[in-house]
Amino acid sequence: MPTRLGKKEIKEKCGVFGVFNHAKASELTYYGLRALQHRGQEGAGIVSSDGIVLHKQVGEGLVSNVFNTEDKINSLTGLNAIGHVRYKTFGGAGIENVQPFLFKHHTGDFALCHNGNLTNSELLKKDLEYKGHLFHSTSDSEIIAHLVKKGRDREEDRLQVIHHALNKLEGAFSFLLLTKHKLFAMRDKNGFRPLCYGKLDDGFVIASESCALDIVGAQYIDSVQPGEIIQFSDSGISKSSFATTSKLRICSMEYIYFSRPDTDLENINVHSFRKLSGKMLAKTHPAVGADVVIGVPDSSISAAIGFAEESNIPYEMGLVKNRYIGRTFIEPSQELRDKAVSLKLSAVRSLVNNKSVVLIDDSIVRGTTMKKIIKLLRKYGAKQVHVRIASPQLKHPCYYGVDISSHEELISHNNNVTAVAKIIDADSLAFLETKDMKEVISTFKKDGNNICTSCFDGEYLTKIPNDFHNAMLELEKKIIDNE
Amino acid sequence: MPTRLGKKEIKEKCGVFGVFNHAKASELTYYGLRALQHRGQEGAGIVSSDGIVLHKQVGEGLVSNVFNTEDKINSLTGLNAIGHVRYKTFGGAGIENVQPFLFKHHTGDFALCHNGNLTNSELLKKDLEYKGHLFHSTSDSEIIAHLVKKGRDREEDRLQVIHHALNKLEGAFSFLLLTKHKLFAMRDKNGFRPLCYGKLDDGFVIASESCALDIVGAQYIDSVQPGEIIQFSDSGISKSSFATTSKLRICSMEYIYFSRPDTDLENINVHSFRKLSGKMLAKTHPAVGADVVIGVPDSSISAAIGFAEESNIPYEMGLVKNRYIGRTFIEPSQELRDKAVSLKLSAVRSLVNNKSVVLIDDSIVRGTTMKKIIKLLRKYGAKQVHVRIASPQLKHPCYYGVDISSHEELISHNNNVTAVAKIIDADSLAFLETKDMKEVISTFKKDGNNICTSCFDGEYLTKIPNDFHNAMLELEKKIIDNE
Amino acid sequence: MPTRLGKKEIKEKCGVFGVFNHAKASELTYYGLRALQHRGQEGAGIVSSDGIVLHKQVGEGLVSNVFNTEDKINSLTGLNAIGHVRYKTFGGAGIENVQPFLFKHHTGDFALCHNGNLTNSELLKKDLEYKGHLFHSTSDSEIIAHLVKKGRDREEDRLQVIHHALNKLEGAFSFLLLTKHKLFAMRDKNGFRPLCYGKLDDGFVIASESCALDIVGAQYIDSVQPGEIIQFSDSGISKSSFATTSKLRICSMEYIYFSRPDTDLENINVHSFRKLSGKMLAKTHPAVGADVVIGVPDSSISAAIGFAEESNIPYEMGLVKNRYIGRTFIEPSQELRDKAVSLKLSAVRSLVNNKSVVLIDDSIVRGTTMKKIIKLLRKYGAKQVHVRIASPQLKHPCYYGVDISSHEELISHNNNVTAVAKIIDADSLAFLETKDMKEVISTFKKDGNNICTSCFDGEYLTKIPNDFHNAMLELEKKIIDNE
Amino acid sequence: MPTRLGKKEIKEKCGVFGVFNHAKASELTYYGLRALQHRGQEGAGIVSSDGIVLHKQVGEGLVSNVFNTEDKINSLTGLNAIGHVRYKTFGGAGIENVQPFLFKHHTGDFALCHNGNLTNSELLKKDLEYKGHLFHSTSDSEIIAHLVKKGRDREEDRLQVIHHALNKLEGAFSFLLLTKHKLFAMRDKNGFRPLCYGKLDDGFVIASESCALDIVGAQYIDSVQPGEIIQFSDSGISKSSFATTSKLRICSMEYIYFSRPDTDLENINVHSFRKLSGKMLAKTHPAVGADVVIGVPDSSISAAIGFAEESNIPYEMGLVKNRYIGRTFIEPSQELRDKAVSLKLSAVRSLVNNKSVVLIDDSIVRGTTMKKIIKLLRKYGAKQVHVRIASPQLKHPCYYGVDISSHEELISHNNNVTAVAKIIDADSLAFLETKDMKEVISTFKKDGNNICTSCFDGEYLTKIPNDFHNAMLELEKKIIDNE
Repeated sequence: MPTRLGKKEIKEKCGVFGVFNHAKASELTYYGLRALQHRGQEGAGIVSSDGIVLHKQVGEGLVSNVFNTEDKINSLTGLNAIGHVRYKTFGGAGIENVQPFLFKHHTGDFALCHNGNLTNSELLKKDLEYKGHLFHSTSDSEIIAHLVKKGRDREEDRLQVIHHALNKLEGAFSFLLLTKHKLFAMRDKNGFRPLCYGKLDDGFVIASESCALDIVGAQYIDSVQPGEIIQFSDSGISKSSFATTSKLRICSMEYIYFSRPDTDLENINVHSFRKLSGKMLAKTHPAVGADVVIGVPDSSISAAIGFAEESNIPYEMGLVKNRYIGRTFIEPSQELRDKAVSLKLSAVRSLVNNKSVVLIDDSIVRGTTMKKIIKLLRKYGAKQVHVRIASPQLKHPCYYGVDISSHEELISHNNNVTAVAKIIDADSLAFLETKDMKEVISTFKKDGNNICTSCFDGEYLTKIPNDFHNAMLELEKKIIDNE
Repeated sequence: MPTRLGKKEIKEKCGVFGVFNHAKASELTYYGLRALQHRGQEGAGIVSSDGIVLHKQVGEGLVSNVFNTEDKINSLTGLNAIGHVRYKTFGGAGIENVQPFLFKHHTGDFALCHNGNLTNSELLKKDLEYKGHLFHSTSDSEIIAHLVKKGRDREEDRLQVIHHALNKLEGAFSFLLLTKHKLFAMRDKNGFRPLCYGKLDDGFVIASESCALDIVGAQYIDSVQPGEIIQFSDSGISKSSFATTSKLRICSMEYIYFSRPDTDLENINVHSFRKLSGKMLAKTHPAVGADVVIGVPDSSISAAIGFAEESNIPYEMGLVKNRYIGRTFIEPSQELRDKAVSLKLSAVRSLVNNKSVVLIDDSIVRGTTMKKIIKLLRKYGAKQVHVRIASPQLKHPCYYGVDISSHEELISHNNNVTAVAKIIDADSLAFLETKDMKEVISTFKKDGNNICTSCFDGEYLTKIPNDFHNAMLELEKKIIDNE
Repeated sequence: MPTRLGKKEIKEKCGVFGVFNHAKASELTYYGLRALQHRGQEGAGIVSSDGIVLHKQVGEGLVSNVFNTEDKINSLTGLNAIGHVRYKTFGGAGIENVQPFLFKHHTGDFALCHNGNLTNSELLKKDLEYKGHLFHSTSDSEIIAHLVKKGRDREEDRLQVIHHALNKLEGAFSFLLLTKHKLFAMRDKNGFRPLCYGKLDDGFVIASESCALDIVGAQYIDSVQPGEIIQFSDSGISKSSFATTSKLRICSMEYIYFSRPDTDLENINVHSFRKLSGKMLAKTHPAVGADVVIGVPDSSISAAIGFAEESNIPYEMGLVKNRYIGRTFIEPSQELRDKAVSLKLSAVRSLVNNKSVVLIDDSIVRGTTMKKIIKLLRKYGAKQVHVRIASPQLKHPCYYGVDISSHEELISHNNNVTAVAKIIDADSLAFLETKDMKEVISTFKKDGNNICTSCFDGEYLTKIPNDFHNAMLELEKKIIDNE
Repeated sequence: MPTRLGKKEIKEKCGVFGVFNHAKASELTYYGLRALQHRGQEGAGIVSSDGIVLHKQVGEGLVSNVFNTEDKINSLTGLNAIGHVRYKTFGGAGIENVQPFLFKHHTGDFALCHNGNLTNSELLKKDLEYKGHLFHSTSDSEIIAHLVKKGRDREEDRLQVIHHALNKLEGAFSFLLLTKHKLFAMRDKNGFRPLCYGKLDDGFVIASESCALDIVGAQYIDSVQPGEIIQFSDSGISKSSFATTSKLRICSMEYIYFSRPDTDLENINVHSFRKLSGKMLAKTHPAVGADVVIGVPDSSISAAIGFAEESNIPYEMGLVKNRYIGRTFIEPSQELRDKAVSLKLSAVRSLVNNKSVVLIDDSIVRGTTMKKIIKLLRKYGAKQVHVRIASPQLKHPCYYGVDISSHEELISHNNNVTAVAKIIDADSLAFLETKDMKEVISTFKKDGNNICTSCFDGEYLTKIPNDFHNAMLELEKKIIDNE
């Protein structure tokens, strides 16, 4: 039973973007979503408000596929808009899971989009269903919508209702709520997922990452603080805190892998963090005598360059990513799969042949890709492959919006470093220690503890699904008794 | 205020199709929907159940556009399925209004599709919203879903809950409900919209029109009776009545215009009804001395042939419909529009030149099309045009699922026959009387009164939106008081 | 060997449309092609000339699929245009066979489209290839292009070159040639395929059928005469005859089946011809004692109504065609195919049950469809089925553009009327005699002999592919000798 | 007149790929083309031969868009195949220009695809047209096809005919010719455009770049030599030279910009060449006192890393490319364009703010992009911007397949280095000298002169279009005289 509670149909790592009070609201949102495309390629959507009606356009695929005519953007009239890009899902997703969700209500339609993962979503959903609510999707976002809309009419109560609702949510969430005249931005009390905002002309822009503010030319103001709710309205910005206690614990994988190198997360540039991590790795786990440093493109290049700079071993482009991949409709036959290791990466013989290689990657999850890359490098003549990973060992599942769902699939959960090295066939292997990663954060004059490291150390910062086991049993009993 | 109550965003004239217990459930549904394509060209969808999961595929456009790969059909696994074709809507429709709707629920997902129109939908929706429910669409069908699902768990109570829910609905509805293991077919107590079922191998097929049973080779059994709910389950068919009183009053426009000529509605063939109407018209309103009888294709051909047969005036194909029209993406420029009267109809000079024409149409709504046709015939040389309409004068809006929304747009509401004749420039004009239409029904040994004629005589058979005026005011007051 | 000569990869029954000197040339062509859509649904295209450049848009599928944005029409600038709809082909067609063909030439680009079939195309093509020419397509039209363009520069010689080229062609052709400033319309000396033209404002319109002139509001002038070439230029119309002898022998299948009922072919309305054929059939082959007359939709309805009118047996809509079929992407499984006889036609039980039926069709080719229809009628209760065919027995292949390629597939080639009746399971069967068909033509005060009846009587009016057997052998010998 | 001769409608920089004798020929070609996608994104196509029939699939857009179903690959049966990716074109391209071209011929169909640019194409085309040939496209490839196919029948003469034809061509060409049973690979006598081949199982693979051999797991054998023609047949490989003199002069832009970093061109790895160029630049044109080295992604990263390594100035990711761009259907409004400098590149404030930046790019053409980038860097706080270009000044148009068509558009044609620096607003600017670039080549133990540098020094290695001026005049005179 407990594991059932922990299993969710959808794992979200998404991006959100919003504009308040700008004549080009929907066009800006389109470009903002494109800057956030790396956070989700499976679906995209925008809802705009013209003060009277909320307009919606959503679809499956890339932002540029969903918005493939100017008409679609032009139909999204109004000065305010929110948008969403959605991450790959398990199983039969479908258009009904693509956000923003739009709800039709006699007190005014409203829309919502969300990045994160609730840990008590099953309990909340069952409770709502018990009270007669119906759900179209399997997304946490629809649960939030049911909680923030309690049938009340009065605009003046809205903020209070939302405060109340947010306190019922456990886990990670950064979300945007659009009504006819207002836009609300909210972030959970640990600030697991990023959310920041800036100024553009007379309006405001809100985004998962600062790179999306840059792309539309907005001036960065600040992050939405953990536990904060910001209301954008004709009277300007109004901030309040819904949480009694709050402390920043932003997901370390955002620095390590998810976010774009040109994004600043809590005022730390992501590329700089990665390069420093690479340098730290070169200090703590050097690879003496190696000939070349090679990074796994794209997310490990910064760390590889840092490692090269620190160690004075030349950095070479020994692995190349195949660009222009686009959406592939055709899967390679088994015969081809065996022949060519991978269509996504190519090794360069003249750079690796007869060389002792330091191979830098940002992380190891299952280890299967790393094993293939090492095999590829050896096939192209590498004498030795010394693997250095610019993050700690991934040992525990994440309940805060990262798609790592079970212990079993994590190679470092059941194997120590030596065992992993053997499995992936590395001549040597080392990981950045958690404490060293925190020190990298401190270099930027930040508190090294304000990152979440639960997937490395298993110390979860909130209740996780299993913790709601008894409440679930109790609710189920109540349902049965009542009938 | 009253008129606001009467205004709905969506006017539905749709088709539904279902299969219970057949290995080819989704493929049969696909073909069934194609046979019902004339009932709705704006959207189509199928939900199937494999006993564990409900699978959904919906899209905008024709059935053949939505289901444009075999994969889509193949993904709809299971022995049971329901499907829907959707009629054109006003304003920004969108994918969220395409049925069947699928609801995710911890007691078992369920799906629903619907043909008809509730007269108390606004009241029901506001009441549900007041209780905290949220709606994604503007469709009556979503309201029905909220009523039939009350958070209860037990399968054995389902039928009772549905009975209870159906008694809250006012107006016209024929709908299908699919759960993991069962399929329910329901029809309102007046049986406004058609719904029939048949046998196919070891399973059952349910359809809006009998032509869809024919196309899949099913054996017609009977209509779902007014006020009846049929449950299809592993134990076979089980019928019950949810209404205390019920009396068939099927929509006369189904005979006159909507249904396919090869459909039998309540055991009366639609072509035969139309041909007899044409004969009756020839008796009651002859066109002595005319040279040719011409029908407006396609729906008036049967009546025109009947008129010709009775009057001994030769029937000629003086108007031809342009086939293969497909979906047009290009609108003619004004210059072309003025030149060629219409791209949908062509007149044949050699058949109308210098002739006195009897022009048969099934009905006149606004009169604009008829005016254009008469102009076209005269342009091609017609000496005289005597118009005979095979139905009574349309004078009142319909609240039961036909897209006639206001008095103002009905040419016969404000004009008597002579005035209409003048507006459309007819040499003479006559309509079939309501009593004669009832006599045509009687010819088939049926009760002439079992058709709804409210759009002709304004005598509505149920409460209409205006009747809920006070209840709406009361509910609004209650909402305000409670806050 | 001879049969190889007779086998062609593509059998064309197409439609052509052209506009000279009209501001809306491409838009008019678009609508003209839609009116001719019944002549070819596999591909469509338009080439326009703006006096400097020729613009081309072609694609596979229906006209409305190919021209699915206004941009495509708008890109076809200029006052002159020609267009084409293309018939289904055997085997792997492909975009390179979709017309009009556009050729890039330093003396001025030109485009060409064509309806018909050359009987000496193989000989002409091999000869051209022997001289070094290369071909992209398998179409006769590309051969014509190579013949009309001889590398010459001078505009004033063009007409003479074309005259010369046309005299090399054997068989059936109606084609349009567009240069920067001129448009040429040509028809073979027997006028096998129709071609007519009309006036629209200050310009001209040319079309395969008069219905396409009507749809754009053009005034019919005349047919292009057999053996005639009409040049449309800034100096107006200029006609000349390239053939020494010519005599109209228009394809009788155009009257019987191909052309639209609202088209006038050589001043005879197609519907009227068919209705009269039905009357003639009722006189020559009555079906005494039958209860109802039923036509196979759509092309046999006129004849069926004629038969009913003459015989005083009521016409009923006992067979209904499924409309809105659109392009089907999904083929029915064998199980469904066996169950439901056909998705294209439905029978109406209440109209045929217990009736003696006269079934009218325009023609019988293989007999397989007719056999299925009779089976369907019997399944729905028909007591007797008396088949009457409104054309003579099809006994011989056509070499003039109709897709009847071999004796073997013609049921009437090897079977007399009694045998055919038995195969298709008809209670009685009769065909219209060729002499009676000619008498129907005479009724319209025309020469009954000006139709081609070679598929009925086997008397070909030109040399056919077999006749070029020796010339082919000789050419092949020459090629081998020269190398 | 001379400039007219030099103006071509199409400038090609394309990629070709071929497979001979492999069961997965078309699938391999698909993946090979994807590896070459950077050489052309406007169109793609494959022709395969099954020994009897040649099958063709072509389309506009990316390889993954053209081949969007497995059916398309599966329809390309046979053991041999050739494929092509096509570069952006000026003006109205269209499907008729997408290669490979397939020609239907009674002696056996054949297909052809081509990378490069002929300098005498206009003369050849006019001459062929004068002899009666017709062209569908505006591509050089069609001209080659007409030359290699002279109407001859005998297989044994084919090679001789091709030899003869190739000697008529002036300029750059690497092309593949596929017949029913053979595949021919050819490269012009200067080897301007790359072409190499390898072994895969029992068959062969030919590709523009070696990275495409890698991706399908083929073993590199060698380049096709300048002036060489290789025939792949059932008897294996047979090589011959069609040119009397030949000398490798491969396009230096292939090293600098076009080819993928993981490609080896004439046994020099492209990334290594670029990194060494960067080092050479750091030696010859250091930027003393600068804080960071930044490369313009993607093609300049290797040179930037080389510069950083040599100069000991840290390399930082100060410019980031927006990935997942996909095909954009929506153009930014002017307002947005002014606000956000570019959607393709983002600058990272925390890396450039208050820094003296060395900006490395591979080349400068018009200078407009470089000007925008410098403006962007300054906007994000860069104190100084020192530009270093890893190639010589582009001063002359290319006639060998690179899309630089006129002197006017080259910023370095009319401006010296100081003037360019001022235009683009750089604090300093320096280019790699041609002699230093040749020295980089020599480092790899190659002849530094075997690259073409005509766009830098204007010394063309063949006749260019202007050189055919008199021949054109003469031909035109002959044409006029003959008529």
